[in-house]
Order: sequence, then structure tokens, then C-alpha cells
Amino acid sequence: MRSFDSRTGIERLDRDECLRRLEADEIGRLAFNVGGSPVVVPVNYRMDGDSVVFRTDAGMKLDMGRRAPVSFEIDSFDREHRSGWSVVVTGWCDEVTPYEAETYKRLHELPIDPWARGDKEHWMQIRASQITGRRVAP
Amino acid sequence: MRSFDSRTGIERLDRDECLRRLEADEIGRLAFNVGGSPVVVPVNYRMDGDSVVFRTDAGMKLDMGRRAPVSFEIDSFDREHRSGWSVVVTGWCDEVTPYEAETYKRLHELPIDPWARGDKEHWMQIRASQITGRRVAP
Repeated sequence: MRSFDSRTGIERLDRDECLRRLEADEIGRLAFNVGGSPVVVPVNYRMDGDSVVFRTDAGMKLDMGRRAPVSFEIDSFDREHRSGWSVVVTGWCDEVTPYEAETYKRLHELPIDPWARGDKEHWMQIRASQITGRRVAP
Repeated sequence: MRSFDSRTGIERLDRDECLRRLEADEIGRLAFNVGGSPVVVPVNYRMDGDSVVFRTDAGMKLDMGRRAPVSFEIDSFDREHRSGWSVVVTGWCDEVTPYEAETYKRLHELPIDPWARGDKEHWMQIRASQITGRRVAP
């Protein structure tokens, strides 16, 4: 089901449609705070239900801190036709540790293969509190 | 000039290269805080020197607040070849008011034409404190 804002021309994508688009992609942008200021970086990810899972290294994990409020975005734009869509996941990000044995095992089996080299041995999970999507048609 | 991190395979783009890529695009992602939590949204923009300029409506402007710390990102990914680049502008965002007559006039002449309809009558400027770029080659 889709709803349409006649003032802005923006179509809202429902949650199922957002999840389908999240499952179909593998790279998005993560925003988190460092010292109270937002920082955005691209990350490779996979979905685990409605959670976004990505791997990172110690430096970025330290920057984010524990149980960080984050926003994660994917999109696709058609500059020629001035159109596109975006899906935004808002929630809390935390590291998945071996203490959560079942989740830890399941997430480590996801095919998250960062394009950049490096160990990236911390597996992070964004638990979604809100998933929204918008589309601007040509 | 480019530098290369042999551990991660990430190439750093210098400031001039970042500015060239910012000037060549017209849509990016803005991260700002709402109640201490980061939010990311796509925005149409143009450059004014090393400042990012975009238009917004009253709602988003209120969410951002005055003189907000922000991060702005553009990128391009090649999923098939597992490669891509991103440029991130970190700085402070504020509305440009008619009191800054010269800047106000100059920015209003920029061809910023949001894809979404709506008045978007507030002209915002991100003054860059840092501009960084990264590229992951295939």
C-alpha cells in the first residue's frame, strides 16, 4: 500500500516495501554521532529480519560508542528524470557479542563482505525503531 | 594528489578532487540531529565555493535548529565491481537570511531545484570545517 502527499508529490513507501528494498541492496549510509556531531559513512550491510547488520573495525566502533542512536539510509536516484527513492532505518546500534550465542552465530553466517579490506571483526546490529520510505516520481 | 591505505585498500581523495565531485553532482544526503539522534535525508544541493547550499521547508528547518552540526555525503557505487567513492562534508549548517544581503542574493541565484514539490523557502548553507573523500577501487 502506498500513500501520496499531494503538496510535495512524495509517495510514502510502506514498511513491507521498505524491507524489500533493504533486502535487495548491500550498501547504505550510516549516520552516528561523534562528540554530539553527526557523521555519515557508507557501509556494506545485510538484513536480519528488520535489523540492519554490518561489520566494522575497532576505530569506528569506539567512535560510535555503545548502544548508539543511528540512522541508516539507502536510495537510488535518476538524475536525468529528477526522481528517486530512499529508505531510512532509525534505531539503536550495538555490537553483537558471543554472549548472545544464537544471534551471534546467525549474524556471522550472513554474507557481509565489505568492499574495503581490513579485519572488520566487530559485528554491529541496528535494531529498527522506525523504517520509512519515500519516492519522488518523474 | 591521492594517498593510499595499504591495510584497507582505501584511497583518500584530496580536497580539490572532493570539491570537483561535489560540484559535479546535485543530490546528496544530509545528516543532522533531532533530539540527540541522527537523521539522514536526501537533499538537492549546489555548491557555493566550499559551502553546500540547499533549500528546505519550515518543518525540517525547525527539526535541525539553528547553527546545527551536520554531515553531508555524496557517493557513487558500482555493486558489480564492488567499488565506489564517497565525499563527506562536515560542518555547521545555518539559514541564510536577508540580513546577509550579498550572500543571500548570490545563493538565491544558484540553480537549486528540488525534485520534490513544495515551497522550500529556507535557504540553508553548510560551512565546511572538513571535506574528506575515499575511494575503494575494484
